[in-house]
Amino acid sequence: MSSLPLDAPMKPLDPHAIAGDSQAILEFLAEYYRDVDKYPVRAADLEPGRVRKLLPEAAPEHGEPMEHILEDVRRDILPGLTHWQSPRFFAFFPMNASSAGLAGEMLSVGLNVVPFVWAASPAAAELESVVVDWMARLFGLPRRFLFSSGGGGVLQGSTCEAVVCTLAAARDRALGRLGGHEAIARLVVYASDQTHATFQKGARLVGIPPSNFHVIRTSAASGYGLTAEAVRAAVDHDVGLGLVPLYLCATVGTTGLGAVDHVRELGEEALRHGMWMHLDAAYAGSAAICPEFQDYLDGAELADSYLKNVGADDDGAGKAPAAIDYKDWQISMTRRFRAIKLWVILRRYGAAGMRAHIRRHVAAAKWFEQRVAADERFEVVVPRRFSLVCFRLAPRSGLDDDGDDDATNHVNRDLLAAVNASGRAFMTHFVVDGKFVIRLAVGGASTELQHVMEVWDLLQGKAAEVLQHYVKPNGL
Amino acid sequence: MSSLPLDAPMKPLDPHAIAGDSQAILEFLAEYYRDVDKYPVRAADLEPGRVRKLLPEAAPEHGEPMEHILEDVRRDILPGLTHWQSPRFFAFFPMNASSAGLAGEMLSVGLNVVPFVWAASPAAAELESVVVDWMARLFGLPRRFLFSSGGGGVLQGSTCEAVVCTLAAARDRALGRLGGHEAIARLVVYASDQTHATFQKGARLVGIPPSNFHVIRTSAASGYGLTAEAVRAAVDHDVGLGLVPLYLCATVGTTGLGAVDHVRELGEEALRHGMWMHLDAAYAGSAAICPEFQDYLDGAELADSYLKNVGADDDGAGKAPAAIDYKDWQISMTRRFRAIKLWVILRRYGAAGMRAHIRRHVAAAKWFEQRVAADERFEVVVPRRFSLVCFRLAPRSGLDDDGDDDATNHVNRDLLAAVNASGRAFMTHFVVDGKFVIRLAVGGASTELQHVMEVWDLLQGKAAEVLQHYVKPNGL
Repeated sequence: MSSLPLDAPMKPLDPHAIAGDSQAILEFLAEYYRDVDKYPVRAADLEPGRVRKLLPEAAPEHGEPMEHILEDVRRDILPGLTHWQSPRFFAFFPMNASSAGLAGEMLSVGLNVVPFVWAASPAAAELESVVVDWMARLFGLPRRFLFSSGGGGVLQGSTCEAVVCTLAAARDRALGRLGGHEAIARLVVYASDQTHATFQKGARLVGIPPSNFHVIRTSAASGYGLTAEAVRAAVDHDVGLGLVPLYLCATVGTTGLGAVDHVRELGEEALRHGMWMHLDAAYAGSAAICPEFQDYLDGAELADSYLKNVGADDDGAGKAPAAIDYKDWQISMTRRFRAIKLWVILRRYGAAGMRAHIRRHVAAAKWFEQRVAADERFEVVVPRRFSLVCFRLAPRSGLDDDGDDDATNHVNRDLLAAVNASGRAFMTHFVVDGKFVIRLAVGGASTELQHVMEVWDLLQGKAAEVLQHYVKPNGL
Repeated sequence: MSSLPLDAPMKPLDPHAIAGDSQAILEFLAEYYRDVDKYPVRAADLEPGRVRKLLPEAAPEHGEPMEHILEDVRRDILPGLTHWQSPRFFAFFPMNASSAGLAGEMLSVGLNVVPFVWAASPAAAELESVVVDWMARLFGLPRRFLFSSGGGGVLQGSTCEAVVCTLAAARDRALGRLGGHEAIARLVVYASDQTHATFQKGARLVGIPPSNFHVIRTSAASGYGLTAEAVRAAVDHDVGLGLVPLYLCATVGTTGLGAVDHVRELGEEALRHGMWMHLDAAYAGSAAICPEFQDYLDGAELADSYLKNVGADDDGAGKAPAAIDYKDWQISMTRRFRAIKLWVILRRYGAAGMRAHIRRHVAAAKWFEQRVAADERFEVVVPRRFSLVCFRLAPRSGLDDDGDDDATNHVNRDLLAAVNASGRAFMTHFVVDGKFVIRLAVGGASTELQHVMEVWDLLQGKAAEVLQHYVKPNGL
């Protein structure tokens, strides 16, 4: 595979080129996954702009062999990456890769059809409606969500896209009722203080006045779940001011703490005020393929948007619309053949395989939570529900300043920094009620109990170091 | 590779699983590309719902080998696809796959990092700013668009996402100036009757009243390009009514006809009214890597958004912002590692290879345009600028009803239907000034001059058949 001479025509789909280029990548990835555990999880000590400086200012004039490109990936790119596929990645929420996911994506990109309207690739559009129904069944959702029962859904590219589509639908429904576009200035949307920031971004994008984005406080008493009482108080107050309640975002598994809003209670409250209820289960929704987590979705039939989305064209006969133009169910006109990736994953692993995978991570998180709870230096800040553990060094842990959150926050911040700087784990934090909380988000594709055990050892060692440092000055 | 037993733990990143699953896909794709020319380009004679009926109603309980899954793809999915990678695909605009694109995507999905903020994968964020600068240089854009000169850009997932982001930015800038969210009802956006429908969708999404989406007519006299005079007349009229001009969308290479708006003229007009000008070059922009097409971008520095986008955080010192959080430059919070795909493509083929590829398609379109012009039965409806040819059977072509567009439209509709039904080519149509126009969009990754020659033969044969059918009754 030598550099293409200037005058050689580019043959982008030449079988030899495909075989050669792909093989080079597969070898690279095999090496990467073999070594990923050895890299510092988080790209550390990297001053901004360093990678940029390593790379040329302009594209090359002539083509290069894939091997040259991959040498540069090894030398210039890999050291600057945070390794999301490391088994020691416990930050944000892990984003799973898998052999079936890679295969599905290769199939999607290899076929490279664009099912923006049904006619542009009928099988792609229909496969999407099939896998969306498969997911609804796996989640145990009410039948009305199924295409085969007059419901339906779409695979969005991200949570924010789903929020933007549904907010716009709710907004236009309300404006139609209120008569006159000026009424947009009176529409109010409601979130809890635990709702993901993507909702605020989406509300601003669709033209809801930023001052009409109302955040309702949660507290430890409800496990940081939004309560119907709090929603009612906020809505009643706003209605008294002449505002119009538009949209309530309920969350099953919040990003910061994994908190769960009471879906049925909130759905009934939303109904009372004529509000759209959206159910965001971007994190914890997938856990609901396990029956033991499906209670969290109780009341989902009260949601205006879960899987079901704008543009759903129910033909009224309780059957699936025959030919769906998915471009009308999303922001963009164009779209990838996403359905085949999900289909390959579900076929390759099966429902039982997926459930076992999720349960393995939940069990590992449970193990970790128990260790934290049993160690008097630490405390579990919020009871774990899925595979996210929120904990910290407790105020009582040898510090003289028992109960002072500032000092406790300092020591926890130092602990997290020490763990992340070690390169042997990467975790992120969240602040709730003024408390700096460390998040251990278990869920990496290759994360095993062993890695969680190792991170617990690491934390104990670093905690001892950090506490020693803090206790000494006060102890003198 | 046998079915996973129920109790075998899923090892999603196991090297053997990756090698096995990927290899199966590569063999499938090699076979697919070998055979793609034999399939009917467009999935024909497919009643809606047929593919859906072939597939089970629920996900399988247990995992299956990749070979089983691919057998189902061959049997159930392939016959229902429209083959966008067929060399005989001339519909919409072709969507290129390539060996380097597949490799880049595999690398992106294999590493599976999520560069939503700089710190979440610094090298990924910085690689994006590098390749965006590479593209700006290839397009010959003014230096102010480069990160290295205080500009900057982002790889959006689609045109609509770019439109939504820039519309929201323009809207909020205007509302800030006008003081009061109610003013949103007075904001007007302008498009030509050739602007892509995605703009109308975007404007509606961000809350511009549908009645304030003003479409300005174009005509054959300007090659269906929008003129500054027409914009001025529309804006003056609206300002007289108390409306506020917000945003003008100029297009280089419209979807229907490949028309080009005069960017400099429109930019100066927009400036005069304090409007945001957006430049949509989703189709023809890539041709501007060839210097002979760069004149079409003259005046691009007057655009508020081209590569540059919302959130650009110029530090005022004429240097690139050090650490970019790309989540603030797009709709979604999350994002794929898109930059590495584009980087692999640019490295693998080089600028010279990409230019040659584009010129080969433009030359083939030119060849076709000349044949059409030389055949008295046909006419070129709009002069070709890039690789899209818009033509039809001319009114004079043996029909008694010379000049009657309805009859001419009928015969052209029949011609297109006959060509597409043959399975040997797929083209789409557009209607302009009441004329049904056939579009030959050359640009498929493996489309060669030979395929364009064959489609010309096919068209001539079908035209003879169709004309015979139409002429006969009148000739009796």
